[in-house]
Amino acid sequence: MSKEKLVTEITSMEQDFAQWYTDIVKKAELVDYSSVRGCMILKPYGYAIWELIQKELDARFKKTGHENVSMPMFIPESLLQKEKDHIAGFAPEVAWVTHGGEEKLTERLCVRPTSETLFCEHYANIIESYRDLPKLYNQWCSVVRWEKTTRPFLRSLEFLWQEGHTAHATAEEAQEETINMLNLYEDFCKEFLAMPVIKGQKTDKEKFAGAKETYTIEALMHDGKALQSGTSHNFGDGFAKAFGIQYTDKENKLQYVHQTSWGLSTRLIGGLIMVHSDNNGLVLPPKVAPIQIVILPINMKKEGVLEKAQELMENLSKEYRVKIDKSDKSAGWKYSEYEMKGVPLRLEVGPRDIENGQCVLVRRDSREKVFVKFEELEDTIKSILDNMQKDLYEKAKNHRDENTFSATSLEEFKQKLEEKQGFIKAMWCGDLACEEKIKEEVGATSRCIPFEQEKISDVCVCCGKPASKMVYWGKSY
Amino acid sequence: MSKEKLVTEITSMEQDFAQWYTDIVKKAELVDYSSVRGCMILKPYGYAIWELIQKELDARFKKTGHENVSMPMFIPESLLQKEKDHIAGFAPEVAWVTHGGEEKLTERLCVRPTSETLFCEHYANIIESYRDLPKLYNQWCSVVRWEKTTRPFLRSLEFLWQEGHTAHATAEEAQEETINMLNLYEDFCKEFLAMPVIKGQKTDKEKFAGAKETYTIEALMHDGKALQSGTSHNFGDGFAKAFGIQYTDKENKLQYVHQTSWGLSTRLIGGLIMVHSDNNGLVLPPKVAPIQIVILPINMKKEGVLEKAQELMENLSKEYRVKIDKSDKSAGWKYSEYEMKGVPLRLEVGPRDIENGQCVLVRRDSREKVFVKFEELEDTIKSILDNMQKDLYEKAKNHRDENTFSATSLEEFKQKLEEKQGFIKAMWCGDLACEEKIKEEVGATSRCIPFEQEKISDVCVCCGKPASKMVYWGKSY
Repeated sequence: MSKEKLVTEITSMEQDFAQWYTDIVKKAELVDYSSVRGCMILKPYGYAIWELIQKELDARFKKTGHENVSMPMFIPESLLQKEKDHIAGFAPEVAWVTHGGEEKLTERLCVRPTSETLFCEHYANIIESYRDLPKLYNQWCSVVRWEKTTRPFLRSLEFLWQEGHTAHATAEEAQEETINMLNLYEDFCKEFLAMPVIKGQKTDKEKFAGAKETYTIEALMHDGKALQSGTSHNFGDGFAKAFGIQYTDKENKLQYVHQTSWGLSTRLIGGLIMVHSDNNGLVLPPKVAPIQIVILPINMKKEGVLEKAQELMENLSKEYRVKIDKSDKSAGWKYSEYEMKGVPLRLEVGPRDIENGQCVLVRRDSREKVFVKFEELEDTIKSILDNMQKDLYEKAKNHRDENTFSATSLEEFKQKLEEKQGFIKAMWCGDLACEEKIKEEVGATSRCIPFEQEKISDVCVCCGKPASKMVYWGKSY
Repeated sequence: MSKEKLVTEITSMEQDFAQWYTDIVKKAELVDYSSVRGCMILKPYGYAIWELIQKELDARFKKTGHENVSMPMFIPESLLQKEKDHIAGFAPEVAWVTHGGEEKLTERLCVRPTSETLFCEHYANIIESYRDLPKLYNQWCSVVRWEKTTRPFLRSLEFLWQEGHTAHATAEEAQEETINMLNLYEDFCKEFLAMPVIKGQKTDKEKFAGAKETYTIEALMHDGKALQSGTSHNFGDGFAKAFGIQYTDKENKLQYVHQTSWGLSTRLIGGLIMVHSDNNGLVLPPKVAPIQIVILPINMKKEGVLEKAQELMENLSKEYRVKIDKSDKSAGWKYSEYEMKGVPLRLEVGPRDIENGQCVLVRRDSREKVFVKFEELEDTIKSILDNMQKDLYEKAKNHRDENTFSATSLEEFKQKLEEKQGFIKAMWCGDLACEEKIKEEVGATSRCIPFEQEKISDVCVCCGKPASKMVYWGKSY
């Protein structure tokens, strides 16, 4: 289809949330489908968002001493099987390569669903002494998980991500790294994506296959469902024992290393959509917007308009990601397109504006319109973009707080979730049986045991036995 | 192994070139092997070189209007088969996924060996009108080719690369893009990697499966073998016809698009090694060196030494990629390690230097040593690094020129290649039979028909019939 057709009305989120999401993904030109089931094409605009996420995260990783490497995309079946919980978790969802060219392989290779086993094998080869520790590696790549039902960004057969894998001398250091990376993720979501998250620990039922402990950041979407937005795992020495990753300490004794892994994926782009966007399309926080300002010359044929627009473009490009649209499409059409694409700021400049020494700025989220004198333009733009970044965070946080409820009984739990979807805070005794019963009867899973605990009551919301842990529950993507 | 063991003597290139190459790859810590046959692990130092290459090329692509996208890694068998020359070329060397989880797939998927078919399918979906053209897409990813014998960087089952894929309204535009990208590659190799290349066209025998014309840049290695370092293909409308990629032109008539693709890979790192390095290890042109300057404090325990070294580190880091090595390893050990890793400049500073207001600079390639007053340090470093970048290019170019010979008969051809391996310039009538005979009798393949033609004689070096094309021939990686 030509671009002209792409900008049309989208389904409102109140009418059909899933369709609203799909409409944005397609009409903001983030993603397209291919003939490969469940795999997505990231179009230039969608990929540009990922590049900004990557650049910011990569800088943060490097600043904290992490180094990038590249591991093979294949894992021999025997290697994947070395850690028993890990293979049990991943075997049902991997893609198997059985033939190379015309020949049948003597051992099947899976396409990596995650790379713990490859990093472990490598660490076993390169770590000998305490001097080799810590190893703080990360890789940017794609992984494959054979999902039955898929949705762009949220769940796909193949997705782009980063996976950090570290090895440490002591259990304490590994735990410190696990929490540091979770904190890095939280700060990144808050500062860069304007996305508030709940930080906490996963229950045993929900933790990663092979992990001793899994930590998570959970965000609340417009529709009240939770999105697991990043995880950080402490493996203890479980993988080290399975793979024989040992080092000699300062006393020359052999010790097992302690390991972590942590990952964030293109799923975050799905989160960005469902946390910030509206019925006019995508809304992007300025920091993660591929185009931060779009300049629209009005009445382009009038003398001086294009020149002025071009001059503004050149000045603003020093500081911002700017696009100028000189096409002959109608102003209304352009408004819709750049709203659909979530460009934070629209700058209009026409002959009369130029006469008055000013231009018009329209903010994407609030649609607030201001006339600004050229000499005040730079300061005004800076303050609008700063405010927008902050306001989007506050708005999302308010939405989350307004949609977070407490329950002290299973009836109340069920009733509150039926009234309005959101997070439910409730006490839990720690028994798997209760966790499973809640899922069965209420349809909510445990999202995390938050670091910031509150005492909702003294007893488990399910069985009534004494309980000291407060858990966030919810329906999830 | 611990790092201490990694720096040892390496095989000299005169003694065993292949072993010299392997030693550098391992001992400069560029690559490690995994249990996946033919796949390599890019270690932090090796990956850092790739990141620098990526950053520079990506900026050049974007500056020339190209956009990054991300395509699936899988290609359904039926899609791969749509263009008959393409499938014929790639079928013998692809990896096949036959199972997802526990289920057998109804259609096999290959792991992409290259992504023409995926881009074509996408272009058929998104191109409608002349307004949608040109499409100038690129992606950074890894691809898989089921090679029988593999060598790190030069030929591996999986390798990292970029693949550009473009669609244009006219044959002229497609040809222009093909040549522009070849020129971009040449300039990048020259300016960034200090690697001289011969630009030219591939013969029909050597062109890419499905291409109308293939252009190449060919570099000469230390051992006189050629390395195909990058290719740019003009597909004409062949793929467009196979995939039905049509647009309506300004007269509202349906037309087929004209397409190109072009790629560079981690192979270039193999080229960097074999063009610049020596018997002490890796030599890297400053622009592509992950560490440009290593600072070694001498007699660290003496008062003021570490402070001065740290001060230099902080100042120089504003401009360069700098590392300071404060470990208690011996100076000799450190010299060897950073020579092995190809760090362009070593800066030593000890108590007596500080007294004299100076430090020592040692250049990696020439091992030239100079004492420099602190106040002249920045200027001196700039000029040494600039010179080193230039000198490495000149040296490589001289080596290539000295190892480029002409031949007017098959005997002379054979004899010259037996005396010394290198490029042979010889006339060719254009017949496949002659090309094959030369390969069979002399063991050399046609590298390219260079843009810069010379008249070596009037007749084909093989059959003696009139010939107007001068071809570069050689043994190749």
